[in-house]
Formats: sequence, C-alpha cells, structure tokens
Amino acid sequence: MDSPHPKKITVLGSTGSIGRNCLDVIRIHRKNFSVQYLTAHRNVDLLVRQAREFKPQGVIVTDSRFYNNARDALQDVCEVHAGMESVLNILEDPQVDMVLNGLVGGAGVLPTYHALKNGKNVALANKESLVVAGKLIMDLVNTGSCFLFPVDSEHSAIFQCLLGENIKSVRRILLTASGGPFWNWPREKLKDVTVEQALNHPNWDMGEKITVDSATLMNKGLEVIEAHWLYGTSVNQIEVIIHPQSIIHSLVEFHDGSVKAQLGIPDMRIPIQYALTYPDRLPLHTDYLSLDKIGCLTFDTPDFSRFPGLKIAVDALHGGGTHPAVLNAGNEAAVQRFLQGNIRFTEITTVIEKTLAAYPIQQEYRIEEVLAIHEEARQYAFKIQV
Amino acid sequence: MDSPHPKKITVLGSTGSIGRNCLDVIRIHRKNFSVQYLTAHRNVDLLVRQAREFKPQGVIVTDSRFYNNARDALQDVCEVHAGMESVLNILEDPQVDMVLNGLVGGAGVLPTYHALKNGKNVALANKESLVVAGKLIMDLVNTGSCFLFPVDSEHSAIFQCLLGENIKSVRRILLTASGGPFWNWPREKLKDVTVEQALNHPNWDMGEKITVDSATLMNKGLEVIEAHWLYGTSVNQIEVIIHPQSIIHSLVEFHDGSVKAQLGIPDMRIPIQYALTYPDRLPLHTDYLSLDKIGCLTFDTPDFSRFPGLKIAVDALHGGGTHPAVLNAGNEAAVQRFLQGNIRFTEITTVIEKTLAAYPIQQEYRIEEVLAIHEEARQYAFKIQV
Repeated sequence: MDSPHPKKITVLGSTGSIGRNCLDVIRIHRKNFSVQYLTAHRNVDLLVRQAREFKPQGVIVTDSRFYNNARDALQDVCEVHAGMESVLNILEDPQVDMVLNGLVGGAGVLPTYHALKNGKNVALANKESLVVAGKLIMDLVNTGSCFLFPVDSEHSAIFQCLLGENIKSVRRILLTASGGPFWNWPREKLKDVTVEQALNHPNWDMGEKITVDSATLMNKGLEVIEAHWLYGTSVNQIEVIIHPQSIIHSLVEFHDGSVKAQLGIPDMRIPIQYALTYPDRLPLHTDYLSLDKIGCLTFDTPDFSRFPGLKIAVDALHGGGTHPAVLNAGNEAAVQRFLQGNIRFTEITTVIEKTLAAYPIQQEYRIEEVLAIHEEARQYAFKIQV
Repeated sequence: MDSPHPKKITVLGSTGSIGRNCLDVIRIHRKNFSVQYLTAHRNVDLLVRQAREFKPQGVIVTDSRFYNNARDALQDVCEVHAGMESVLNILEDPQVDMVLNGLVGGAGVLPTYHALKNGKNVALANKESLVVAGKLIMDLVNTGSCFLFPVDSEHSAIFQCLLGENIKSVRRILLTASGGPFWNWPREKLKDVTVEQALNHPNWDMGEKITVDSATLMNKGLEVIEAHWLYGTSVNQIEVIIHPQSIIHSLVEFHDGSVKAQLGIPDMRIPIQYALTYPDRLPLHTDYLSLDKIGCLTFDTPDFSRFPGLKIAVDALHGGGTHPAVLNAGNEAAVQRFLQGNIRFTEITTVIEKTLAAYPIQQEYRIEEVLAIHEEARQYAFKIQV
C-alpha cells in the first residue's frame, strides 16, 4: 500500500480504548493515513492532545457541556463542533474515506447506519450496531457500494479465515471466548463478584462496559449476533468455545473438515490496522506470537448454567426482529447498574430477562423505531426491581 | 463444483497410503471425478481390485515382473502397461486432466516434471520431487499454464492460509511437526530404537519410509525444502515447531503480527480432496474437529542435538544446487538400511552426512543430471561404512 494519497480516517470515540489504538496505528503509518475528524464524549484533555498531534479538519465533543473547553484549546488547530447531530453531519462530508466506529453501546448504532447510507466504508468496533440494527445495516452493505470491516478480534479472525473462500463451504463458525475472570468459579461464588474483580480481565485491556460483558459472557452472546449478520450464517452454525489464553481469536470449519484459525497476541492494533489496510497488510511492530513460549492452548465447553447470558443472547437472536435490540438495552442498563453498585453480578442477566419479557417482538422496523425501542427499554431496565 | 464433466484423475502410486486415500475421495464423489489411469509398483492384487471398481482407461505395473499377473486379471477391464516409461507415456495423454503423484521417494521426481512439462495439473504428495528438482519444477510451474497443488498436510495448510493473501506480506512460515514417537526420549536411548518402534507413529497412518522420516525429523527437513520451493520463501523464513497432537497442520505469520493456521483431524483425505477440488470444497464425511474434546494443544522447540536430521536438511538447502538431491539420496538409502536392520536409528543421519560430504555441490543442472547424481549418491550411500 504505497498510495501517494493517504487514506483519510474519521475516528468516532477517539479517546476510548479502540480509538487510542487506532490512532497508534495511524501514528506508525503516517504516510498511509491521515485523520479527518475525531470525536470524543467528555475526555476533552485527551481529545485536545490528539487534535494537536494529528491535525484533523475538525473534532466533535458529543457531550455539549464540554464544548467550550475544547473550542478554547483548539481555536488555532481545527474546527470544533458539539453534539451527536454534528457526528452525523460530518459523516456526510464527501472528503471522508473511512469511518472507524469505536463508540460504546447503543449510541454507536446510528453513526454506523448513517455512514453506510452515505457510502462510507466503516471499520466497526461498535458491535451494538449489528446487535440492534443488523438487518437494516446489512441491507445497506449488500445493496450499496460501501464495505463493513469487522474490528472485533473474533470477527476480524473470521473475516481473515474466509478470505478466498466461499461462504457456502462453511459448516461452522467457532467463536473463541476467554471465559473471563470467572469461568472456573463455582456458581455460588458468582453472586459476590465485586466491580473490581469484574474489571480485571485476564488477557485484554478494554473499556469497562465490554470488560463486564466478557465476565458475564454476554459479550460473546452479542458477538454471536454480530457474526450472524456479518457472515449471513444461521445461528445454529455459530458455536462458542472457551479458550482461556485468547491466542486463537476464532475459527471457521468448512464442509470438508478443514478448519482455519486466526491467531495472535492480544493486541487490538492488529485487527484495527487490518480493517484500515485490507486487502493489504502493513508491518506492525508488535510482539510476534511464540507458540513454543506459550506452550499450551486449552479449550473447554461454555457452561450455560453458570453463565446464562450467552444462551439468553442466542435465544433473542432466534426470536428475531427487535428482540436483540431489547436484549442489548437491558444489558447496557444492567451493566451500568452493576458498575454503580446497584445490583449484583448475577443480577445482570435477571435484569436482561425481565427487560426482554416486557417488550413483545416487533419483526419489521425502521431505524428510528428500533432506536426508540432500544432507548425506551434501556430506561425501563434501569427501574426494574431485582 | 457441479460440473457435468467429471474431472479425470490419474493416480500414480494408487496402492500406497496416499493413492488409497485419493481413491476413497473419488469413491465419495463419483459425479465429480473419474479415474483415467492407475499405477502401482508390485501390489497387483490391490491394483486389480481398484481397476475393477474404478474402470480406468488403463493401469501400469511399474515393476515389469508383475505385469503378466495384472494383464491376465484385467484383460476385459482396461489397458495394462508395464514399466516407468509407460508412466511417462500416459502423462502425455491429452485426456489427462490432473495427476496425483503419490509415488514414494526419488522415483516420483521425473513423473512430476514430465506431467508439468506436458501442461498437466499435479497434486503432489511426492515431496522428493521438490527436494531433488525444486528449481526445475518451479520454473515449469511459473512459466507454464499448469498448477502444482500440495498434498502434504503441512503444505496444504500453508496453501489454505495463503488464500487471498499476498506472499509479500508473509513474515514466517511455521511448519508443525508431531516430533514423532521419540521427541521426548533422551539422547542415549535413541541408538537402541527398533524398527517396530520407529514405525509406530503416534498420529498418522502412513507408509514405512515417511514414518521413519517422521521419527528422525528428516521428514520435516524435506518439508522445509518443499515449502521453500512451493512458496518462494527464504529458508530463514521457515521455522519448525513441535506440536505433538498434529491438529494444527501448519501456520503462516504475516508482517502485521496476524497468524493464520489450518487445523483438522489427521485424515489425509482432507488435503488430497482439496488439491482435487480447489478452489471449491466438497463435503467430506470425516470426523469433525472437536477442540473442546481434545482439550489442549501443546508446542515445543525442536531439539537439533537429538534430531540432527532437520538441521542437516536446512544446511543442504543453504548449500543449494544439487545438495538437497544428495541429501535425499543419502536419506533414502539410510532409511532402507535401517529398515533392513543394517544400521542403527541414530546412524541414519551419519550415512546422510557422509553422502553429502562425498558429493561437491553443482549449482546448475538439467533434470537428467540431477537424477543421475541422485541415483549415484543413493547407490554410494548403501555402501557407506558406519
């Protein structure tokens, strides 16, 4: 990829874990990429430092209360905008080549949809986009000229294993799950899990929300839904396997018994960079994998009785329509309540189940409808008594 | 692959392990394949049964002493020919679509060369073809319209991992080795290895020659040379890693730190079928891989002091020219001498080293020259005192 014109990247959520890793990739490959826009919610200090380093055309502070701080600090550097509407506006800018969506939660859905609708390629780390509005988003991808590149390590692994293959030859997709910090804990101990314990992921350094999701295995449930939409495979073709070392990021099994896997050290820059450079690969000065030093890779079957989140998610996908959106809304609220000390770890799935029970499945929907249902269900889930 | 015209397959060495597996693949997919010619060395009983089942145009008995038996048994079934010249003749038949070369040892080199020279696609299980005449064979592949498909499980794995990738993005090729039955034996015990112990491979059911080669790790050395020629990677980019379970068949590491692997149960029908069906995959009713049942995959570094064969092979490749051909000749004779009880297990590499020392490297050569050197060195190696 020796293009004389650097690819212009817009980073949604540039101060989060995915956003910072993306900017590190751009920092390593200055000739290949430039930054068009950066968005952050409240972390203005870091956003300002990023803007001074990468000199984007503009930045957006989505929490408008922090707009003034950014405007004052960046008046000689770039445009400064405020609010979610501004995010949607810049996605219409014809100068934007590619959007990396590193937003957390349901807030990332509409930007994905809007970027694709405007013909932009999207590197997607916001898995909620596909959980909440998978059908609508894949309709855009399948009928438009835009591409959707997975950034989740699991889905990037599947994407890489499918290169040069026919999706019709796939028998199963095997999503690996670390199992989180509690995968071998007895059931009775799980109710006493503290916030600190849940935030201590054994392999990956991620944001708080996804770290808790990994501990409940709900993250893997959301990823099953994401894989279903990305690759068009039926939910019955997607299996989850526990792999505590997080070295094999996922596998694809073909009808002839051949299995392909993608492996690597846990470094999110690898899948982020691949989404930005596909079909090329650029050198990344990461630690390379040493299987002989690791010595052993282990595998186990997920235990649905101790970790019901995965089964609830699969059932929601079977339900179809707006059900996965309600699942995601219930989970977002429940995780926030757990982080606030308001409910126990094991009550996260209780909140989700009660949310799902409260909302009948609506099979057909437009984007505004499913987002409204998502928001309403989220508010409802905050008030559920457990 | 719903082609109305079955692909016509010629199987060289149809009564060996690879040949029998190939015919099993054809048996499963009668609509997709037909058999054009079968060749066997001496196992006329099985060759006759195969000819009666698959109704080829002709069979060839390469050991002419057994020709009459085959001719008498098959006179109403198909043509019967004798001798190696007949093998070369049928490779010129314009009806032949694809040749599976399952011959053992240096005898397989000229058929590979001749098939490619006549524009036939070759599915190659005879790794000696590339060890002895890699440069000449790859010159034919790179300048002709024919394809060379690897059948060795390791090289098929690499081939599958490279689908859709640019070879220039490859940092390392990682060939897995089971380590054979003795990989954790102490050095002093290795000199007492019996033929029976050496023929007892832990994972794969193969012919005698390759089973002994696996036990000495010379098989992996020959595979390093094969990979060098097939993929054009420098020898320094090819590493060997011990993986006793033989589930990961090999891996490719890219410059960005991403690693792809191909896995499967040890069933040679998988790589054989893929070589015949590429780029399609057909269902194969094999046992599917269950990583959760296997539980654990382990990795280790090869020990060159106990298994010098691998290092000798890599050094021969560094030497270049006719050196790998002499290596192969020395190994063929040494393995045969070990199987005959004539030398010890640890003396196999002694014979190889003495053979290499006796033949100066000739950098440029034609096919007849390198085959003559190979045969002369093989005869010489039979007479070396250890």
